Amino acid sequence: MNTIFTIQTTGPACYEFTGQVNKWLRRVAPAEGLLTLMVRHTSCSLLIQENADPDVQIDLLDWLNRIAPPADHPSMHWLRHTMEGPDDMPAHLKAAILPVSLQLPIADGRMMLGTWQGIYVVEHRNAPHTRQVAALFQAS
Amino acid sequence: MNTIFTIQTTGPACYEFTGQVNKWLRRVAPAEGLLTLMVRHTSCSLLIQENADPDVQIDLLDWLNRIAPPADHPSMHWLRHTMEGPDDMPAHLKAAILPVSLQLPIADGRMMLGTWQGIYVVEHRNAPHTRQVAALFQAS
Amino acid sequence: MNTIFTIQTTGPACYEFTGQVNKWLRRVAPAEGLLTLMVRHTSCSLLIQENADPDVQIDLLDWLNRIAPPADHPSMHWLRHTMEGPDDMPAHLKAAILPVSLQLPIADGRMMLGTWQGIYVVEHRNAPHTRQVAALFQAS
Repeated sequence: MNTIFTIQTTGPACYEFTGQVNKWLRRVAPAEGLLTLMVRHTSCSLLIQENADPDVQIDLLDWLNRIAPPADHPSMHWLRHTMEGPDDMPAHLKAAILPVSLQLPIADGRMMLGTWQGIYVVEHRNAPHTRQVAALFQAS
Repeated sequence: MNTIFTIQTTGPACYEFTGQVNKWLRRVAPAEGLLTLMVRHTSCSLLIQENADPDVQIDLLDWLNRIAPPADHPSMHWLRHTMEGPDDMPAHLKAAILPVSLQLPIADGRMMLGTWQGIYVVEHRNAPHTRQVAALFQAS
Repeated sequence: MNTIFTIQTTGPACYEFTGQVNKWLRRVAPAEGLLTLMVRHTSCSLLIQENADPDVQIDLLDWLNRIAPPADHPSMHWLRHTMEGPDDMPAHLKAAILPVSLQLPIADGRMMLGTWQGIYVVEHRNAPHTRQVAALFQAS
């Protein structure tokens, strides 16, 4: 069974969609299997991260901006790919080091996530985007 | 077939568990298929890395500390999420850029790893932790 | 169905092999399923990245060199694992944060990639290498 999840973003942030995934799994995944998620873009990411303290996500975004600053930051004067705006090339850099695909073992119809793990789209661009996540469930 | 591997950690280091995985595979994976591993925590990581020179792992840990220093390092004064200790938020940062899940094609009952590849849990926290890795084998 | 893709590299760069993968899929994947790719080395990476402007790939390589410089750069004097050359340990560092495995949902015999996504081997070593990517297709 496959589907595409659509996540509307409005600037850099972590957008949790664990609920959307669970709802779909309850319909298609009665038992054991594997869920694969793959984001169909090169300037945002998937992430499994803590869903308790929202400061964790803010700190993560801040840190990514410090290791991959916008193209108009003095330390990034060497960037070539700047024609799509100062946030575009850093978005590709962040997309290279954060997951593009995630795999979740399913047992008894539920993702084997830990207590504090949620599933997120991490938006790296400033403008609003409609992001697609391709999903595939394979029963064992 | 699914299982959970338990890895006891005692501070930041790479903990190889290739042997545990191989032992389980010999029991459940007679032929071709896919092994998925997913760590059920947000402050440690999975990693496939060189298992020859142990200095590689020490250098990796040192480097991660340089790009994501502890919260009590002057360069990290801007961190918000500090209530769980100076090693907690950097652990989440490292967990965001190292793998949370790994997929290993199996042929003839064996993982198709290269000669120098081992499978590790990378612990990012200072205190000892009991880490769980969910595993799923799906025959082709 | 499994196979091994061989990619010949000649120094640090992104080597696209989307075409090789598509050709194989047309032969083995008539319908829905999951494609898993795993690189069998610890000093190069897999990557899904933009395949439009080649400057994106050059900027990515430059950035990786800035966050993980060669061992003979003054900022890297603390590295221990230097006996395989100044480009070896940084290659392991880059290999830790870029993907070692990728999973691609297949629908109607085609990878569900976005419009701008290509599949690459990212070479981190200076010398030419013959790189192997293990591939597994599992029908749903």
